[in-house]
Amino acid sequence: MSKKVAVLVAGSWGTALASVLAANQLNVMMWTRGEEQAAEINEQHTNARFLPGAELSPLIQSTTDMGAAVEGASAIVIVAPSSAMRAVAQQLKAHYKPEMLVIHATKGFETESLKRMSTVISEELECEEGQVVVLSGPSHAEEVVKRCPTTVVVASLDKTAAESAQGLFMNAYFRVYTNRDMLGVELAGAFKNIIALGAGMSDGLQFGDNAKAALLTRGLAEITRIGVEMGANPLTFSGLAGIGDLVVTATSQHSRNWRAGSMLGQGKKLDDVLNSMGMVVEGIRTTQAAYFISQKYNVQMPIADQLYHVLFQERLPRDAVEALMGRDPKTEMEVMKLETWEQWHS
Amino acid sequence: MSKKVAVLVAGSWGTALASVLAANQLNVMMWTRGEEQAAEINEQHTNARFLPGAELSPLIQSTTDMGAAVEGASAIVIVAPSSAMRAVAQQLKAHYKPEMLVIHATKGFETESLKRMSTVISEELECEEGQVVVLSGPSHAEEVVKRCPTTVVVASLDKTAAESAQGLFMNAYFRVYTNRDMLGVELAGAFKNIIALGAGMSDGLQFGDNAKAALLTRGLAEITRIGVEMGANPLTFSGLAGIGDLVVTATSQHSRNWRAGSMLGQGKKLDDVLNSMGMVVEGIRTTQAAYFISQKYNVQMPIADQLYHVLFQERLPRDAVEALMGRDPKTEMEVMKLETWEQWHS
Repeated sequence: MSKKVAVLVAGSWGTALASVLAANQLNVMMWTRGEEQAAEINEQHTNARFLPGAELSPLIQSTTDMGAAVEGASAIVIVAPSSAMRAVAQQLKAHYKPEMLVIHATKGFETESLKRMSTVISEELECEEGQVVVLSGPSHAEEVVKRCPTTVVVASLDKTAAESAQGLFMNAYFRVYTNRDMLGVELAGAFKNIIALGAGMSDGLQFGDNAKAALLTRGLAEITRIGVEMGANPLTFSGLAGIGDLVVTATSQHSRNWRAGSMLGQGKKLDDVLNSMGMVVEGIRTTQAAYFISQKYNVQMPIADQLYHVLFQERLPRDAVEALMGRDPKTEMEVMKLETWEQWHS
Repeated sequence: MSKKVAVLVAGSWGTALASVLAANQLNVMMWTRGEEQAAEINEQHTNARFLPGAELSPLIQSTTDMGAAVEGASAIVIVAPSSAMRAVAQQLKAHYKPEMLVIHATKGFETESLKRMSTVISEELECEEGQVVVLSGPSHAEEVVKRCPTTVVVASLDKTAAESAQGLFMNAYFRVYTNRDMLGVELAGAFKNIIALGAGMSDGLQFGDNAKAALLTRGLAEITRIGVEMGANPLTFSGLAGIGDLVVTATSQHSRNWRAGSMLGQGKKLDDVLNSMGMVVEGIRTTQAAYFISQKYNVQMPIADQLYHVLFQERLPRDAVEALMGRDPKTEMEVMKLETWEQWHS
């Protein structure tokens, strides 16, 4: 019998990752709370609500029983929404065994605590953070199930764990890079949503390609700056989880963050935007988080700061852009501490 | 009388930069070889062939007399095509005075010699490289004349020269950052055209957003790698002249490099592509240059290498992508030499 991998939960990205594992001849068991959804996956081999039009491999099965999902699995892939991560990890605890490889592919922080997903998972499973791997990068689920060429990064404090995850997922259309900067990969994945929101706002104001490229580049500079201050490798932000994912998110009209920003740029109020979206816009919560984190670390994040004022203090988007353009002349480059370099490149 | 700046030559980017200087109340004298074009600029205040629809300030004048253009100017902005740079600099020599600030805004290498533009200029003017400033970044000329928010970087070995250039151009819609890594800014501006070509090819093959983001990110990684080997700061490539300009070039259908790549991806032959474009595609020459430079420095540039084979060895674009996806598993991060860090961040 070939290896078994459990995927918790059966949203679009979880299902797309399951399809990659099945393409690699692994048995996949997806856990979901929805009886009907599980039956649909098992009998119709579709997951129409989350991935309309996709036909799933019979190697992908589904269950609402967490114990049955995890039993005998050599790896567990957790793709719960950030707001549900602690509850899912709690439920997993009873069935988790230390020899299981735990990979998560969720972006964002826990609300209130602002903890990273790997912290939440390791707290609940009572394991070392090094036993958790994060998977991130520029990857529309719809394209992955169609086997379009895609690259992602897997990061862990434990090199062997990251390489195991690389081995599970890598194939001819899904290329996986390792990185030992788990902190950087998780921070980049979360913070990039702020910049995607800003890029949408710039597009909503019809400011053009130059302005959007400026936002992406200077946005990258400021999320790198805060990331380095928190202990990450600056070059992680120029990698797949950072600029790679940012490019996809900020140039796609399918991105919720871009779309919310665009509506704000057109002059809509935050409440109206949220109502019309009908779901969580991660970048809005992350902007709020960044506002407090940048003060705590005493790091300038001018774009996040202006977005915070647009979102929560009724500043006009046009005034925010003017304030950004009118800052004192600066150098492009931040001088970073030698210790940062030694930590990552020696 | 207010300060005078000379702009050599009157193409679209030269004219856009002239419009920024004029907005800052400077007298601008544009040099061109075209009598009719000079008359049009002086009398109609337009430059219809290069910037259709734009109305130019009366502070912008034009002449075909290089001596008259440069006489009394405190700064000279050179925006000649890379292939014409040496001839223009040669002609400038007779009128150049060492107290004039020289800024160039041309991307690419000199053909054959593969020299950077600042090297060509300083050789011809017989001045120090430090007296030359390069201006680069994500900036469609059409948007700059419309005063859309735009950011660029000016780099020089001489901090004061870079800050003088920043002072000349900076205003409420044109934000200028300084950088002391002139080498990195020039290399990024040239090499990024390779990746734009590759992104176009991926789009021509209809490979999707994931593949394009992968190309941009891994392309950035490889042009950073060769840049660092040549002595540049890795973070310059994550700045405005690198990823910023790359995003604009690779996502705009107006980009010649993207367009040429897209036609190649659709299965057209190189000769047919070049014939139908009717003008130079910088990324094609730069791919050839990178192929030889990467061998000389013994640095892997897998994307440039595959593109070289598609362009000049009849490799099929689809096979090139397959070869890229099928490489051995890698880590995302290059370990860089401590000296590189110390050089730039101490």
